[in-house]
Amino acid sequence: MAMIGGGKNAFIGAVHRIALNMDGLMEMVAGALSSNADAAIESGKELFLEESRIYTDYKTMLEKEALMPADKRIDFVSIVTPNSVHFEPAMMALDKGFNVVLEKPITFTLEEAKQLKEKVVATGLQLLLCHTYTGYPMVKQAKQLVKNGALGKIRKIYVEYPQGWLSTFLEGTGQKQSAWRTDPKQSGKAGSMGDIGTHAFNLAEYISGLQVTQICSNLNIVVEGRLLDDDGAALLKFNNGATGVLMATQIAAGEENNVKIRVYGEKGGLEWKQEDANSLLVKWLDKPAEIYRTGGGYNSSFAAHNTRTPAGHPEGYLEAFANLYRNFALTLGAKIDGEMPKEEWMDFPGVEEGVRGMAFVDNVVASSSGNEKWKAFEV
Amino acid sequence: MAMIGGGKNAFIGAVHRIALNMDGLMEMVAGALSSNADAAIESGKELFLEESRIYTDYKTMLEKEALMPADKRIDFVSIVTPNSVHFEPAMMALDKGFNVVLEKPITFTLEEAKQLKEKVVATGLQLLLCHTYTGYPMVKQAKQLVKNGALGKIRKIYVEYPQGWLSTFLEGTGQKQSAWRTDPKQSGKAGSMGDIGTHAFNLAEYISGLQVTQICSNLNIVVEGRLLDDDGAALLKFNNGATGVLMATQIAAGEENNVKIRVYGEKGGLEWKQEDANSLLVKWLDKPAEIYRTGGGYNSSFAAHNTRTPAGHPEGYLEAFANLYRNFALTLGAKIDGEMPKEEWMDFPGVEEGVRGMAFVDNVVASSSGNEKWKAFEV
Amino acid sequence: MAMIGGGKNAFIGAVHRIALNMDGLMEMVAGALSSNADAAIESGKELFLEESRIYTDYKTMLEKEALMPADKRIDFVSIVTPNSVHFEPAMMALDKGFNVVLEKPITFTLEEAKQLKEKVVATGLQLLLCHTYTGYPMVKQAKQLVKNGALGKIRKIYVEYPQGWLSTFLEGTGQKQSAWRTDPKQSGKAGSMGDIGTHAFNLAEYISGLQVTQICSNLNIVVEGRLLDDDGAALLKFNNGATGVLMATQIAAGEENNVKIRVYGEKGGLEWKQEDANSLLVKWLDKPAEIYRTGGGYNSSFAAHNTRTPAGHPEGYLEAFANLYRNFALTLGAKIDGEMPKEEWMDFPGVEEGVRGMAFVDNVVASSSGNEKWKAFEV
Amino acid sequence: MAMIGGGKNAFIGAVHRIALNMDGLMEMVAGALSSNADAAIESGKELFLEESRIYTDYKTMLEKEALMPADKRIDFVSIVTPNSVHFEPAMMALDKGFNVVLEKPITFTLEEAKQLKEKVVATGLQLLLCHTYTGYPMVKQAKQLVKNGALGKIRKIYVEYPQGWLSTFLEGTGQKQSAWRTDPKQSGKAGSMGDIGTHAFNLAEYISGLQVTQICSNLNIVVEGRLLDDDGAALLKFNNGATGVLMATQIAAGEENNVKIRVYGEKGGLEWKQEDANSLLVKWLDKPAEIYRTGGGYNSSFAAHNTRTPAGHPEGYLEAFANLYRNFALTLGAKIDGEMPKEEWMDFPGVEEGVRGMAFVDNVVASSSGNEKWKAFEV
Repeated sequence: MAMIGGGKNAFIGAVHRIALNMDGLMEMVAGALSSNADAAIESGKELFLEESRIYTDYKTMLEKEALMPADKRIDFVSIVTPNSVHFEPAMMALDKGFNVVLEKPITFTLEEAKQLKEKVVATGLQLLLCHTYTGYPMVKQAKQLVKNGALGKIRKIYVEYPQGWLSTFLEGTGQKQSAWRTDPKQSGKAGSMGDIGTHAFNLAEYISGLQVTQICSNLNIVVEGRLLDDDGAALLKFNNGATGVLMATQIAAGEENNVKIRVYGEKGGLEWKQEDANSLLVKWLDKPAEIYRTGGGYNSSFAAHNTRTPAGHPEGYLEAFANLYRNFALTLGAKIDGEMPKEEWMDFPGVEEGVRGMAFVDNVVASSSGNEKWKAFEV
Repeated sequence: MAMIGGGKNAFIGAVHRIALNMDGLMEMVAGALSSNADAAIESGKELFLEESRIYTDYKTMLEKEALMPADKRIDFVSIVTPNSVHFEPAMMALDKGFNVVLEKPITFTLEEAKQLKEKVVATGLQLLLCHTYTGYPMVKQAKQLVKNGALGKIRKIYVEYPQGWLSTFLEGTGQKQSAWRTDPKQSGKAGSMGDIGTHAFNLAEYISGLQVTQICSNLNIVVEGRLLDDDGAALLKFNNGATGVLMATQIAAGEENNVKIRVYGEKGGLEWKQEDANSLLVKWLDKPAEIYRTGGGYNSSFAAHNTRTPAGHPEGYLEAFANLYRNFALTLGAKIDGEMPKEEWMDFPGVEEGVRGMAFVDNVVASSSGNEKWKAFEV
Repeated sequence: MAMIGGGKNAFIGAVHRIALNMDGLMEMVAGALSSNADAAIESGKELFLEESRIYTDYKTMLEKEALMPADKRIDFVSIVTPNSVHFEPAMMALDKGFNVVLEKPITFTLEEAKQLKEKVVATGLQLLLCHTYTGYPMVKQAKQLVKNGALGKIRKIYVEYPQGWLSTFLEGTGQKQSAWRTDPKQSGKAGSMGDIGTHAFNLAEYISGLQVTQICSNLNIVVEGRLLDDDGAALLKFNNGATGVLMATQIAAGEENNVKIRVYGEKGGLEWKQEDANSLLVKWLDKPAEIYRTGGGYNSSFAAHNTRTPAGHPEGYLEAFANLYRNFALTLGAKIDGEMPKEEWMDFPGVEEGVRGMAFVDNVVASSSGNEKWKAFEV
Repeated sequence: MAMIGGGKNAFIGAVHRIALNMDGLMEMVAGALSSNADAAIESGKELFLEESRIYTDYKTMLEKEALMPADKRIDFVSIVTPNSVHFEPAMMALDKGFNVVLEKPITFTLEEAKQLKEKVVATGLQLLLCHTYTGYPMVKQAKQLVKNGALGKIRKIYVEYPQGWLSTFLEGTGQKQSAWRTDPKQSGKAGSMGDIGTHAFNLAEYISGLQVTQICSNLNIVVEGRLLDDDGAALLKFNNGATGVLMATQIAAGEENNVKIRVYGEKGGLEWKQEDANSLLVKWLDKPAEIYRTGGGYNSSFAAHNTRTPAGHPEGYLEAFANLYRNFALTLGAKIDGEMPKEEWMDFPGVEEGVRGMAFVDNVVASSSGNEKWKAFEV
């Protein structure tokens, strides 16, 4: 595979590479790692790429790689650039016959996301969208518990994602991660809601199997001088009649990366938080609460498939991330081999989740700026 | 003191009596414990009241007690009846010169609450409103941390109160606690929002020292057949520009009584939840999080004053409740002795909190039924 | 009832009074609250005792109270003096026909404990020994789970009790609590092992229903200048073949009062710690762990009987303490009424536990000073 | 690098490979993956090794690889065979000039460990012993806090390692992991104490910087028919006068892999448990407890160096394992480049820890079978 973006000092590029390497299933053999030619070359060398496959722009890379023999050329590209540079390389990669891995949010605009979806459908290629939190074994387990009806009909969903790292005007210091994330030209129309709100939204729909139909939101710019929302909350209605609350903020001073979700049904509720990722708490109406644990023999095949070590050996963020890649690669491999991928393998977020994520950004921003309480969730 | 309501099988009446008894500062000597004469008498006997001071209606009690000599007659009454029977006995008690303890919400309507406030002001008597959670030592500590500026300017408040005990149509089974709480004639215009939402609202204003100015709410009746909201959430704006989210539900199957609050300022955030009531977690932007603990020598005088045992001996709900009574009694005692009560003693919820609580009920219901996003919080 | 010791500034005396008051079942009407006459009188007045029943020595009190008519005189005495002043007042109280409540350890020596046991048996009176931790609802539940065989045969017990308050030479500052606890003349032959080790020992035997038969201990004086052990640990063998470890220390700087016990059987293990007293964690060999909670409808009658509030309203140390008194009082009341006390009422620690506790002190000290690994646990 | 052992279905072999792959610093190019030739070949193919470098016995591999040119031949071997097959391949590898990675316990006997140490010293080669838990960032932080004197003089250490997976006679079912671990011929003279007790022992010495000097232990065979200890505990004395308790068991039904350590000094105590690996709790004598977190900007350079993701992205067992390999590889790389490795890189367990671990096995077994209380810890 090859990477677009993700050169030196890029947080998420390094994460992708660790995820790629973890299981020895994939190898990064090419890259256009920076829009700056020198940085691209330097980064490529540091990562031991063959010089001939270190590219200084992604277009050249996609063109040249497409001309290579099938057994040599890359199978897929991972695009880990700022949001504004997702759409074009993804479209071109698909056009050239490459499968695609994309960071979220999938594109810069909802319109682009829809076009990308059409392209994916038309080409029959695979697209992985990196909603990491869906890769955790206990998130898989949570989804299966809901799906199997253990909780009964779902009535209430609370999902929250507090971070604190943007509590000060960090972008004013030149800090790279904050600079692009708070810049409308690179991030799009939403700040925190695009960066982390989309994760929360995806997690809620993924675990519950429901879809948001109405939204009532309030976005704020808390830190003076900032150009995009750094805080927000939304009331939600789901397509089965359930309601919910979504909270996402990057100005909760002292919080790290505290994603948490609670889903309540008629018979009980489940609770998962990333800080204690290997436990899934299930509270019951009429019996003692239970703690499902990564590696437990009682877990579903979906949780088990995404577990690498025996119970009691904590798996973390990188393993969850690697699970996305592994499922994507296994699915890809099966397709290449002409076999049917297992259901557990195909359980990774793709272009449909990308479109809904972009729609979330559009709707949460539109609702916040309007005076009406409820806004229909439009895609 | 005397009790109005709170006869046999009344949950909160028993709690009041334990709180009263705990420190040996007060004694229950009279009671009109039920509107049913037989039950009133039976309950009074079970509680070892003198027969002459077991009353079958509160009016008679207040009249007769008022005629007793000062050293014999009661100092105050505790009114623990359903919401619809708060106002009249409270007004009459004040008129007769008795101080008053009331369960929340303080009255049936906001208008009554305002009248009661006028009466309290006019008589110069004391009123205690039982917002129990403000009696916890670590809630006191939280308030002091905010007040002393440790967190910097407050930016965000999350307060939540999930319960699960009304997940089914319990009132249909004749269960007493659920029957009156879900009956508009006894509870007023709100169900869960009146019962527990008011606690959450009070806790947020108490700890932050801020006031809600705008509200955007969504209340739901989740369980079929129910007549009042059993679930709801609200987006909030506070008078310093901070925003917040309030969640209160009684249909979160599996939850017990899970009050939790988080308050974030520029420098850090605090987190308190009743399930772990003796810890106060304070997360800092740039240093390790801290855990304040009940009984810690480093705590404020407000926390220390409300602590009965050395660190590591958990204090619970009954102690928090008893703290309200103790502070009320100490303040009363000082006034009787013509002394100035300590600041720590006077730190208990009163009629002002009652008025704001009723305003919360009015505003949260009005906002929910309207189409506009924000409703000004009117008192 | 009446109290011996427990005057002003006495920690445990105040705790006993709160416990007494909590349920309105008992009333303190007399006291010999200090061996210092002035202090005894002053303390009695502060507690609103009738002047005629404020005594300056316990002998006079016991004699005078014994002469009162049955409906007026006390039913029992609570002895909350240092260990060296337990035996004589307890013996005299029993001789005078009064039931007795005692702080642990029950006496100064094992020999005294045995004599006291004989006296209790001979008089047929009741004795309550205040092993507070056995009063917690979830400790009751733990005992019942073991008793009912849910865990299978018990194999391993870990019990620990770390405190940190004696990390410095506190007794050198004149601090009262530390002064008598570290003084062999007042505390007996053990320091920490008598003060808190006995609690740990009792908790292990209480929950497991087993008895220690062999012990291998190491006691230490960590803080220079101290006269009694402030730290220690012991390997244990139980009468069913199970083994265990007991740790008790008062020099674990930063620890408050962190009692914890784990009991493992063939099918699973349970874990209870006082810092989270309302949860009982039960881990199973082949299914998700469960969390039993105070107030849960699924609990045993023993747990339910010792619970005052609905689930989710934390009960703490004072409620656990009050449970001891309540069960003692209920049992006493039944006996007075000529009725059979319920099994749940009679489940409080008594003289037998006191004898075993003193034997623990003897054996743990003897083992520590010997060179042989195992010492038979002799009573 | 090459691997000896660790073919199909081997738990720890797969873990080593993930750790190797994680950072892209090392590549597995050869292997003698099983003592069964067919299995060795099949496993090698599955791992995409070149056929020429799939070996059916380690001796051939070491000989052939040694003959390759320097830029092609392996730098080191990872030996992941049962304990009985550690010494010979390690000695031969060192003799052939290869660095060595070994699973713990390092050898079958203490004598072998000492010989291996001499060989390592003589050859000047590197040896990594996989005490995984020392690779966690918060364990590094714990060690630095002790080293920097933050806790004052260390007084007490509790270390525990409960597992439950050997609660039944699993080896009787043919389960591979349990079969060799409970077989004296493959595991050596200790069962649980060798398998996990050595980890606990190492963790205590690593964090505290102290050494055990006296031991008093009790080992048990709890499950009938088992040939080696499956449970045990030991009282410890350290070389600075501190004391401790070590508990290790594999029959604590319901426990997963619950390593935990507490170290108390004069000023405070620290607590780390693998189930919550990214938090380090530090309790202070006179101020609020603190929670150090992986990724916190306030951490030492040792913790920071061993962290891959920003705060709030949990790192787990595999990252801790990979940290061992990364530090080993960085140290190796520096040596090859003639540079001085950084102090943070060289902080990995080696042959000295291996010798002490084997001495622990010897001493803990000898103490358990003796009648004297204390046994000097001999190396």
